[in-house]
Amino acid sequence: MRFEVLKKAENSRARLGLLQTPHGTIETPVFMPVGTQATVKTMTPEELEQIGAKIILGNTYHLYLRPGHKVVEEAGGLHKFMNWNRSILTDSGGYQVFSLGELREIREEGVTFRSHIDGSLHFIGPETSIEIQNALGADIIMSFDECIPYPATYDYVKNSVQRTSRWAERCKKAHVNPKQTLFGIVQGGLYKDLREESAKDLVSLDFEGYSIGGLSVGEPKENMYEVLDYTVPLLPEEKPRYLMGVGSPDAIFEGVLRGIDMFDCVLPTRIARNGTVFTRKGKLVVRNAVYARDFSPLDHDCDCYVCRNYTRAYIRHLINAKEVLGIRLTTIHNLYFLLNLMKDIRRAIEGGYLSEFKNEFFESFGYKQEF
Amino acid sequence: MRFEVLKKAENSRARLGLLQTPHGTIETPVFMPVGTQATVKTMTPEELEQIGAKIILGNTYHLYLRPGHKVVEEAGGLHKFMNWNRSILTDSGGYQVFSLGELREIREEGVTFRSHIDGSLHFIGPETSIEIQNALGADIIMSFDECIPYPATYDYVKNSVQRTSRWAERCKKAHVNPKQTLFGIVQGGLYKDLREESAKDLVSLDFEGYSIGGLSVGEPKENMYEVLDYTVPLLPEEKPRYLMGVGSPDAIFEGVLRGIDMFDCVLPTRIARNGTVFTRKGKLVVRNAVYARDFSPLDHDCDCYVCRNYTRAYIRHLINAKEVLGIRLTTIHNLYFLLNLMKDIRRAIEGGYLSEFKNEFFESFGYKQEF
Repeated sequence: MRFEVLKKAENSRARLGLLQTPHGTIETPVFMPVGTQATVKTMTPEELEQIGAKIILGNTYHLYLRPGHKVVEEAGGLHKFMNWNRSILTDSGGYQVFSLGELREIREEGVTFRSHIDGSLHFIGPETSIEIQNALGADIIMSFDECIPYPATYDYVKNSVQRTSRWAERCKKAHVNPKQTLFGIVQGGLYKDLREESAKDLVSLDFEGYSIGGLSVGEPKENMYEVLDYTVPLLPEEKPRYLMGVGSPDAIFEGVLRGIDMFDCVLPTRIARNGTVFTRKGKLVVRNAVYARDFSPLDHDCDCYVCRNYTRAYIRHLINAKEVLGIRLTTIHNLYFLLNLMKDIRRAIEGGYLSEFKNEFFESFGYKQEF
Repeated sequence: MRFEVLKKAENSRARLGLLQTPHGTIETPVFMPVGTQATVKTMTPEELEQIGAKIILGNTYHLYLRPGHKVVEEAGGLHKFMNWNRSILTDSGGYQVFSLGELREIREEGVTFRSHIDGSLHFIGPETSIEIQNALGADIIMSFDECIPYPATYDYVKNSVQRTSRWAERCKKAHVNPKQTLFGIVQGGLYKDLREESAKDLVSLDFEGYSIGGLSVGEPKENMYEVLDYTVPLLPEEKPRYLMGVGSPDAIFEGVLRGIDMFDCVLPTRIARNGTVFTRKGKLVVRNAVYARDFSPLDHDCDCYVCRNYTRAYIRHLINAKEVLGIRLTTIHNLYFLLNLMKDIRRAIEGGYLSEFKNEFFESFGYKQEF
């Protein structure tokens, strides 16, 4: 992997970059659609290409359980298994494993947990996580971390952050595939000194990129932005920075302004399946009765496949009738909207008018849109 | 609508034809995918075009209840509502209404029934059915009939057939849109003299095409073929003949050999959603564990989008993980398989080798495939 910062904004930490992986070149800041189970829900790879996705995310925990990383490896890796020839990033499995709550037990060695599918007992530690991710073969992989819930006590976080650093070191040793790039994950909850400790530990291990984890887990957004304010400057300028699990338009803008290069989130695809879409004028719940005879497109200012061909009335009908095409169309539109927003954000960085673009965007989109 | 018989087979009633509607020219014999709720489940119109669908079916009963024919009319008709520019055929609503069992009451005037969606009370009679179908605006529409269940007594069928004839006459009077072509539906269960009576009544009303209804409703297939043997010769040579609700490969061959021009069936799309696909070597239940590491295509002899790009292992994974892409892929493949089979059948009629092709097909596909 190669990463190059092309331009830095003057009034913020925002930056324009190019990320090169064995599967293509990615302009940053970038949004990565989530393809948890070797598919971005409802979409084909061609459809993802058509809306401009350059890199997608796969979930190690899910793929380990089903179909199993050995099956994916036999298929020739995740790219080949799912017929996606552009870049892929896999997470470490940590987030999902720790989300299991009482179903898992953490030790220094790693985590023992029960499958959400059939209750069977499993173990993933740093070495296992890397082994699985090596088998999946994503272009960018993550070190195994504990994603700390919110709220958490200082002592809990301190203990966890230090273990995550020890795990990061073990991941680095375990990682053997030179075609894959390993990122370290900065944790530390909302505690400044622990974020600093985590960042320092990871930077000393010299990863090729850094993720910021444990945010957007229930804390107020202001707290997240504050963490970014003091954490990003601790990371090397020349390496990519990935804010994990963040993807609402407001948080993307705030993240970009604070120097984030990569984002991922299930938000656009999840709300799509619930009949909610992004528009330049804010979110629109298309399954509502008010759209039954609305023969205009989802978003008047959008030129995506969906907005060029279908009406709100039709999409509302499909979703109400539980027709798969309905959630296909809202998914395409929402991902197009976000990928297009990223393109506009990159242009605004290039043109030096990111703050103005942000104000203009939210004047139309609404400052208080909650997702 | 114009219909032209291009060629008749020498050893059977099979024939090659051209059906012209305001939305295009259709080569017959043709298979029509079913798009019950203004969508062929899981597919976009472009995908239907890509697999060669020239005409699809919409269900009057469903569209009347949801989104309502007035909404579809306001949208500019069903073609525009669903963004499908090729031909559409709608049924009369009769089949679905009569399938409601105890939820409906038949009188001379029409049928009172309760919605399967919310239990609300509705009435559809011949004039209502035509009014709804005029509003939907399909190229080909059906007269309102009673689809008689199997088994049924002679007296029940006789009474019903005579009422269906009276309804057909009322439909003919009620039909006012010259851009739409109205077909009559021959009923009569498995009773030869009642099929003859029905055919005679309808032919005397001079419809532009004739459907054969009330078959494939549970009777042995041999009985269905027998009905076709004596019913088809009663219909005018120069008009199209449509065997309603039939779409298994064996029944399609037998129907074509007996002079049928048009078929429709939910079979290919329904079994697809259950993880079952057609292959030249018979049906394949791709969700079975035996395919977990099978990295070959669904059908080795198929050149559809799915078989060119995906493996059984991947599709099995998607279906097991309840991912929408799985049933999208099996649906595309199954419809492609049937549409391609129809193409091969037309070529075989043209070349004068339909019986040979049939034998060759079933030697590979299996004579006893049950669906």
